[in-house]
Amino acid sequence: MKEEFRVTPWEVSGKIDYSKLIKQFGVSKLDKELLKRIEKHAGELHLFLRRKVFFAHRDLNWLLDEYEKGNKFFLYTGRAPSGAVHLGHLFPWILCKWLQDKFGAEMWFQFPDEEKFLFKKNLSFEDVEKSLNENMLDVIALGFDPKKTHFLVDTKHANLMYKEACKVAKKITFSTVKASFGLNDSSNIGSIFYTSMQAVPAFLPSVLKKKKIPCLIPLGVDQDPHFRIARDVIPKLGYDKPALIHNVFLPPLSGMGGKMSSSESNVAILTTDSPKEVRRKINKYAFSGGRATIEEHRKKGGNPDVDVSFQYLRMFFEPDDKKLQKIYEDYKSGELLTSELKDILIKKINNFLAKHQKKRKLAKKQISKFLYKD
Amino acid sequence: MKEEFRVTPWEVSGKIDYSKLIKQFGVSKLDKELLKRIEKHAGELHLFLRRKVFFAHRDLNWLLDEYEKGNKFFLYTGRAPSGAVHLGHLFPWILCKWLQDKFGAEMWFQFPDEEKFLFKKNLSFEDVEKSLNENMLDVIALGFDPKKTHFLVDTKHANLMYKEACKVAKKITFSTVKASFGLNDSSNIGSIFYTSMQAVPAFLPSVLKKKKIPCLIPLGVDQDPHFRIARDVIPKLGYDKPALIHNVFLPPLSGMGGKMSSSESNVAILTTDSPKEVRRKINKYAFSGGRATIEEHRKKGGNPDVDVSFQYLRMFFEPDDKKLQKIYEDYKSGELLTSELKDILIKKINNFLAKHQKKRKLAKKQISKFLYKD
Repeated sequence: MKEEFRVTPWEVSGKIDYSKLIKQFGVSKLDKELLKRIEKHAGELHLFLRRKVFFAHRDLNWLLDEYEKGNKFFLYTGRAPSGAVHLGHLFPWILCKWLQDKFGAEMWFQFPDEEKFLFKKNLSFEDVEKSLNENMLDVIALGFDPKKTHFLVDTKHANLMYKEACKVAKKITFSTVKASFGLNDSSNIGSIFYTSMQAVPAFLPSVLKKKKIPCLIPLGVDQDPHFRIARDVIPKLGYDKPALIHNVFLPPLSGMGGKMSSSESNVAILTTDSPKEVRRKINKYAFSGGRATIEEHRKKGGNPDVDVSFQYLRMFFEPDDKKLQKIYEDYKSGELLTSELKDILIKKINNFLAKHQKKRKLAKKQISKFLYKD
Repeated sequence: MKEEFRVTPWEVSGKIDYSKLIKQFGVSKLDKELLKRIEKHAGELHLFLRRKVFFAHRDLNWLLDEYEKGNKFFLYTGRAPSGAVHLGHLFPWILCKWLQDKFGAEMWFQFPDEEKFLFKKNLSFEDVEKSLNENMLDVIALGFDPKKTHFLVDTKHANLMYKEACKVAKKITFSTVKASFGLNDSSNIGSIFYTSMQAVPAFLPSVLKKKKIPCLIPLGVDQDPHFRIARDVIPKLGYDKPALIHNVFLPPLSGMGGKMSSSESNVAILTTDSPKEVRRKINKYAFSGGRATIEEHRKKGGNPDVDVSFQYLRMFFEPDDKKLQKIYEDYKSGELLTSELKDILIKKINNFLAKHQKKRKLAKKQISKFLYKD
């Protein structure tokens, strides 16, 4: 039987059926009850939670039990530096920022600068270094509290991380990574070892503070295999399994399948795109649920469920549920044309990016405040 | 066909035929011509060179060519901390000290504190840490110049080493380490990665000084597989292959097969053994080439070629060739009894250890001088 879609840390393709993925990965659905528990503590629910951008989890109930007992969690997420940041990358980061604000959580942000180096044939550490600095600016621009936020760069924090990674590595066989990541005998031995480094920040704060601190990892669902292994190993080292909360992928402009990717920059909105560039990309490439002619559209209406512009508004840019509902209905009835819908989105994105890019510039002087110091 | 002997970084067993090993490993014999080249520069030949304790090499002629062009080499050897140091461990270290003196060479000494942790099931990092400090004392006690000698501890110098190890790792497939080290799918992913870390000190000084510096690695021949791989990879990173010079194993007291091991402490002389302990071990366990009775020994003579005490004198403790020759002949003729031969050795070892242990005590305050600082 042909796979209809494929989700691994290194490949996302096909039209993803997230209900199937929940079963395939053995994660739990992020249900109403759990959302209510979050809302109770946060006072509200972030758009990403309300709109099911975050759709699955592992052990989130346990994490909230601990929180209710007064045992605060820390957040861990990351970014393997390579190329530009696009809007899809921001899902877990923005949720982290919201969780930091609402739960007073410390944030550990990993930049595994060896990951892409090890997995991409022609990438050098010099290439990675350039992306690293640029990528850090995007994280800082989201407004994290520098006093509560710590950046870890694998090769620069190796004194802190390599020993812990060895402890993880000792508990993982090649068979396990082979099965989880599709590696084989021709894989390089750095790529085989790598998942051990990705596991470390999930318990490093517990090592440093010499007590068990619960960990919550917001992450793209494609990263789940790393933490399936990490969750097996970490209790063997005397720490608690990290809880996970998974987001869906922001689709590329070209349509509702797969995952936005910076390497296909025509169908990705980068955080550094100019207003003109955003307009060009959306007008030219954003897959439309509209009809072939204006007349037909007015008569039969469009399909917002496959319309990428509408989906971006739903998943990211229109927080007002009532306004979104109206756009949905107007598009479906044919009252709202594709060009008008795109225009709404373009303005929203450009508004978001104008602020982001301003904060991104200011971030250049702040990097050292965020880098973890022993 | 049954293997008669086995030499890998993790197992040495059987009566080793070093001529066969030269062919098996594809190393070159350390011949007279080469020894003369060394002697020309050093003014003399160390006992370990004269007596073929160091018996094989890779690219030593190239190293001397470079030296003659004014391109000085540095030395690299190491010790995976675990348990006590025995006399056999000292072969490469003592040669390094001699080479440092004679060639003015910088010395990089690696303590890969993760190696035994990764390869030994029940060993913890706490266990390793204890051995690490003890082992460092033995190295310092040999008299290295602290200004020209740098200790690298893998987990403590990971900021310096991990990135370089990733560069090495990217060029090595699992197939390669499988074949070289007998690893398999059940091996842990730390043990699979490890050889990358062992390769790093062979080119790290070149990285730091931003120019190619030739490297010479004195090492037990069982470590050759690590550097067979490293020598393939290092030129791909833009540096020269390190030259190697290999020593035979000091046999255990029990006889001329295998390799002395600290875990079988009755048949190993540890650097911390008391004079009484040395006497007990040698009198009780040192395999003798003598006859069953004194009468028979006087009549037929002993066999120094299989007598461990004689071999220790030859390989380590009697630098005077004439004296050694006389002992050989006297033992063979039966004039020298086994008890007398053992007595000669016991005095020599205890004399050596008395000095070593004194310097070992003084070394406690010197460790920080030897640890490499960025």
